[in-house]
Amino acid sequence: MMNKLAKVGVLGASGYTGAECVRLLARHAHVQIELLTAERRAGQDLREVFAQFSPLALPKLVAIESVDWAAAGLDLVFCALPHATTQKVVGELLAKAPRTKVVDLSADFRLADPAAYARWYGQAHQAPELQGEAVYGLVELHRADIVKARLVANPGCYTTSAQLALVPLIAAKAIALDDIVIDAKSGATGAGRAVREAMLFAEVAEGMRAYGVGHHRHMAELDQEFSRAAGREVIVSFTPHLVPMNRGILSTIYVRGARDLAAGDLHALLAKAYAGETFVHVLPFGEMPQTQHVRGSNMTFLGVVADRARGRAIIGSALDNLVKGASGQAVQNMNVMLGFPEATALEQIALVP
Amino acid sequence: MMNKLAKVGVLGASGYTGAECVRLLARHAHVQIELLTAERRAGQDLREVFAQFSPLALPKLVAIESVDWAAAGLDLVFCALPHATTQKVVGELLAKAPRTKVVDLSADFRLADPAAYARWYGQAHQAPELQGEAVYGLVELHRADIVKARLVANPGCYTTSAQLALVPLIAAKAIALDDIVIDAKSGATGAGRAVREAMLFAEVAEGMRAYGVGHHRHMAELDQEFSRAAGREVIVSFTPHLVPMNRGILSTIYVRGARDLAAGDLHALLAKAYAGETFVHVLPFGEMPQTQHVRGSNMTFLGVVADRARGRAIIGSALDNLVKGASGQAVQNMNVMLGFPEATALEQIALVP
Amino acid sequence: MMNKLAKVGVLGASGYTGAECVRLLARHAHVQIELLTAERRAGQDLREVFAQFSPLALPKLVAIESVDWAAAGLDLVFCALPHATTQKVVGELLAKAPRTKVVDLSADFRLADPAAYARWYGQAHQAPELQGEAVYGLVELHRADIVKARLVANPGCYTTSAQLALVPLIAAKAIALDDIVIDAKSGATGAGRAVREAMLFAEVAEGMRAYGVGHHRHMAELDQEFSRAAGREVIVSFTPHLVPMNRGILSTIYVRGARDLAAGDLHALLAKAYAGETFVHVLPFGEMPQTQHVRGSNMTFLGVVADRARGRAIIGSALDNLVKGASGQAVQNMNVMLGFPEATALEQIALVP
Amino acid sequence: MMNKLAKVGVLGASGYTGAECVRLLARHAHVQIELLTAERRAGQDLREVFAQFSPLALPKLVAIESVDWAAAGLDLVFCALPHATTQKVVGELLAKAPRTKVVDLSADFRLADPAAYARWYGQAHQAPELQGEAVYGLVELHRADIVKARLVANPGCYTTSAQLALVPLIAAKAIALDDIVIDAKSGATGAGRAVREAMLFAEVAEGMRAYGVGHHRHMAELDQEFSRAAGREVIVSFTPHLVPMNRGILSTIYVRGARDLAAGDLHALLAKAYAGETFVHVLPFGEMPQTQHVRGSNMTFLGVVADRARGRAIIGSALDNLVKGASGQAVQNMNVMLGFPEATALEQIALVP
Repeated sequence: MMNKLAKVGVLGASGYTGAECVRLLARHAHVQIELLTAERRAGQDLREVFAQFSPLALPKLVAIESVDWAAAGLDLVFCALPHATTQKVVGELLAKAPRTKVVDLSADFRLADPAAYARWYGQAHQAPELQGEAVYGLVELHRADIVKARLVANPGCYTTSAQLALVPLIAAKAIALDDIVIDAKSGATGAGRAVREAMLFAEVAEGMRAYGVGHHRHMAELDQEFSRAAGREVIVSFTPHLVPMNRGILSTIYVRGARDLAAGDLHALLAKAYAGETFVHVLPFGEMPQTQHVRGSNMTFLGVVADRARGRAIIGSALDNLVKGASGQAVQNMNVMLGFPEATALEQIALVP
Repeated sequence: MMNKLAKVGVLGASGYTGAECVRLLARHAHVQIELLTAERRAGQDLREVFAQFSPLALPKLVAIESVDWAAAGLDLVFCALPHATTQKVVGELLAKAPRTKVVDLSADFRLADPAAYARWYGQAHQAPELQGEAVYGLVELHRADIVKARLVANPGCYTTSAQLALVPLIAAKAIALDDIVIDAKSGATGAGRAVREAMLFAEVAEGMRAYGVGHHRHMAELDQEFSRAAGREVIVSFTPHLVPMNRGILSTIYVRGARDLAAGDLHALLAKAYAGETFVHVLPFGEMPQTQHVRGSNMTFLGVVADRARGRAIIGSALDNLVKGASGQAVQNMNVMLGFPEATALEQIALVP
Repeated sequence: MMNKLAKVGVLGASGYTGAECVRLLARHAHVQIELLTAERRAGQDLREVFAQFSPLALPKLVAIESVDWAAAGLDLVFCALPHATTQKVVGELLAKAPRTKVVDLSADFRLADPAAYARWYGQAHQAPELQGEAVYGLVELHRADIVKARLVANPGCYTTSAQLALVPLIAAKAIALDDIVIDAKSGATGAGRAVREAMLFAEVAEGMRAYGVGHHRHMAELDQEFSRAAGREVIVSFTPHLVPMNRGILSTIYVRGARDLAAGDLHALLAKAYAGETFVHVLPFGEMPQTQHVRGSNMTFLGVVADRARGRAIIGSALDNLVKGASGQAVQNMNVMLGFPEATALEQIALVP
Repeated sequence: MMNKLAKVGVLGASGYTGAECVRLLARHAHVQIELLTAERRAGQDLREVFAQFSPLALPKLVAIESVDWAAAGLDLVFCALPHATTQKVVGELLAKAPRTKVVDLSADFRLADPAAYARWYGQAHQAPELQGEAVYGLVELHRADIVKARLVANPGCYTTSAQLALVPLIAAKAIALDDIVIDAKSGATGAGRAVREAMLFAEVAEGMRAYGVGHHRHMAELDQEFSRAAGREVIVSFTPHLVPMNRGILSTIYVRGARDLAAGDLHALLAKAYAGETFVHVLPFGEMPQTQHVRGSNMTFLGVVADRARGRAIIGSALDNLVKGASGQAVQNMNVMLGFPEATALEQIALVP
């Protein structure tokens, strides 16, 4: 595999996460980009959509319908399409080219229970027969399953941030489960490139707001993964916010230690859990992360501070929503699935500043 | 009083809150600005510090030491000096000119207990004899006392935001007291104009961070006011964050209803508490405020949403930290103290956008 | 007129310039807002479009077609509709209610020559019979005509900025006419609230770009006004840029003095031209304006600096594109047309900061 | 050289350009970072200054005075110190370790004429004996000299942007020399990390300003290089502006074609000049670059558009001031000086977005 370049494609290359996949893949030592799709931009070059690709030689954008999956012979496809259209596309792709692997960046294969999907997304699952084989692709927590997977559901940006901070603590029964508050703040690219009035520069700049309060879809993913880790149902309080910046998610998480565990104990647990990981870094006890320190990188920085209220701790989790929160994690999944060194093409350090 | 203009002064006019006082006072129908001080800028015009005042005729900046308080005959002074220097200045001012009233924008007179001041600020209170007469100047909650006050301690920006949302609920015993989480986000002007590396544009833009986690000084003020409202000690979980915007504070507050009260009940309580207020506006149930909608105005917008976790509610509180969170509230205090209509000079609607 | 409030309407109140008109008019001592229109939002309250109006009592939004102009009996209407739809609407309005005055914020009545309109806007003028009576509403330059006007064409934001700097110099034959470069930078609200991918937060933040290079429609307006001032055709080099900020236009203008006039002479000419004006302020020679100093105000700040290249000067012109560049100027026009003090409702000083 | 890692040091690693060098060098296949200096931070880890380096193993920060240059045996040193202190440091370094090569990111060795240095910087050159051997390090224009150099003066960010656009045109006598206007816009990191009130977030955000109008030090460098290319003295009109963004320079350049050359001819000349270059990309005729498309990359994008004024063209030049405008170019210089492939460690594509 190291001698021959793997052939990869990116579906939805004109969106932010699709283009970010291209940005990372174009400098990847072991892959060759063979296919780029973009419905409304079919026939154009990617440089007409994102001029930074202007100096690169890349395949022209095509429509998905025009692709002959069997003939394409791709080793792996990144699917960066909108929610709800993905299940059908992946179903067709795998029917025609069963040896192609898929990393799906949408939410379409993240919920193991098709009924939960229907409830949160308001429509029936379009490929329930594939859902069973889909592996939830948070590498640090599910690496062993990802190695063997054909179809990986890349996690959401908010949920990656919250899970990396909380799953080891929940699994270790180290925190109270009915008292978890996750206050999450995201940059504007988290909303994707869909054209909406609320995402205009002048509506976002010089201000801040919460949204989806009380009923954000990412809750379904959090519920599933936290409950799986706890072995019982866990319902957290989760509020996403929009911050006037392009990239970055900061989750400020309020927890109460279980079994008399103090903040320092929680920090020790996290430090141990991630001691061997390249892309999760636990700061010294008492330090909180900031999104600037991970921008443009595939890192998640975690910090733990003792609250003055006895028994409570505050955990900070920072990542770049387009990298570790989306496309970087997708490439990390590919590296695991295809047997490349896990950090390939993902070693960029955060911009200064 | 309406026929003759009141004579006012602003100490510390070269900082953000001082200059914002000047901005509001320069268009106030019932006052005349007679004195502006700024230590390092003494001898200059305010226009050399903030060019927007260039077209206005204003007194030159002088050093505080050069002011003859008795001769100045000021009706009221706004004190926008750094914490710790204020107690001494106000002590001297009131000794020389006992009929001058003072609105102090620093933290120096906010803590009723000098021992609490010493504990949180690391030095003895310099004017304990004045602390007894100082009135805590959150107008909507303490108007009756402010009417009669000579010395008003203008509340902090974070604490104004949190108190307006929580004090009526705490006083009504409507929420659990040991389970309150306040996740607060502020624009950069909240840090004042002091020159620090961490506040450079490039350190703040395109990122977000928590700070003072676990031990921020505003906690002392929150403890005092929440405990006063509750009639017992209340210790909340409070985390301030820095957001890449100039103005605005958004507090996202997580509470649990007491006595089986649901989110809708909390909303009704707040709506009733502020029904007659000009500067606190409770949004319809289920809507959350955003800082854009109060920027440049003296308004606080409050919103209440039901959390999906049973019995929990999420409360949003948005204000402009330089107006309702500082200088606007100071002018509002002055209006109350000098008998002017409370909204004078404060009717500006938030910028669009 | 001072005893009875004038009845005014705002067409297109759900856009930025329309809403900004409402913001200013709501605090205007001599007018009453009687009508607000917004096609897609008809039936809603303005607070559903811009929440900052939530505490105010305002008329509901209606569709233009539903308005009975004669019955409405409005004294003046602000027309903040998209280019090209305005001519028809104003034509119908004045046909039905010939005593209503109109301030039009679109480009539809700015070009005196209907042929020029057709050339630059790609369609025939829809109300050529009204064009003849339209007055170009740059108050400082055409006040005498505006006093008598029924229909005023409010100037563009870029062109206001450039004209205030250049028209007095051109009229005085003080600068070379074939060597004028205007490099203009605008905040994002200059593009209005139309929903376009290029105006998403993430497409504008953390970057800068020129646009409309070589062929921007504002050139038509500049050509007309500069040529009128010069008494001959003047074609300037004009490049607009988009800056990641909400409000503000900064024009940096490169000129060469005529008749051996140096930069200081140009400064003296401008200072003299605007000596009696409230809303144009000429900074001391050698100082350049910045947009922060006019944000939220109706001011234009002008500055003149000597270039090191002999005979050349650099002129800076800063204004808030939504105030002096649009809605503030519209209100200023109304004040002149209806005989109110010109600065009414426009005295707000720029935010600090 | 490819088998053994070159040993490099970075002086001034706690500033933006120094840290950006570290960011690039840490992922460079052919170098090992052996030395990092930072006067006020000596004894600390770089992670305490820039937390993004937290996961990396890097040498501790030391004071320059403590370095034994001979013993250090460095192959190359990046000098990212403030102007004026550099000449002395480099003089001492090369005296003790004459085989070490130096890339200096300050302005101290950019002006070939020590008298010009004294005139523009207000003090005598401290190492005139070294100035003679210093090579001006704009790689695309002076590669042949850089290959052989021991001491390279890395160009300024503004001047790199302007020279890449103009030097080929000036050298080809394709444009009029007395009529060049360069209107340049820079992000805030261009001012470095020095702590100044004018660079606070709240002083920069939501606004724009020109600075150094008529007398910016970068003019000396432009004069030198443009005059060298022209074979006669060239004095351009150059105005730098501060834009509320972290990274990026956009130069909008107004020129007049010489010898009846039109904008298309100028474009053809530039396209030909850079046809073989990796880091300068000429966009199709009629397109203008934007800084977003080069952010975080070592690219310069150039665009040429015809002005409507006959014979005039508008040229856009965009780069990232910390990469191609500083540290990326410094690494590019090192690659040339040490014989590495020129693009090593510089292949990162601009962030999306």
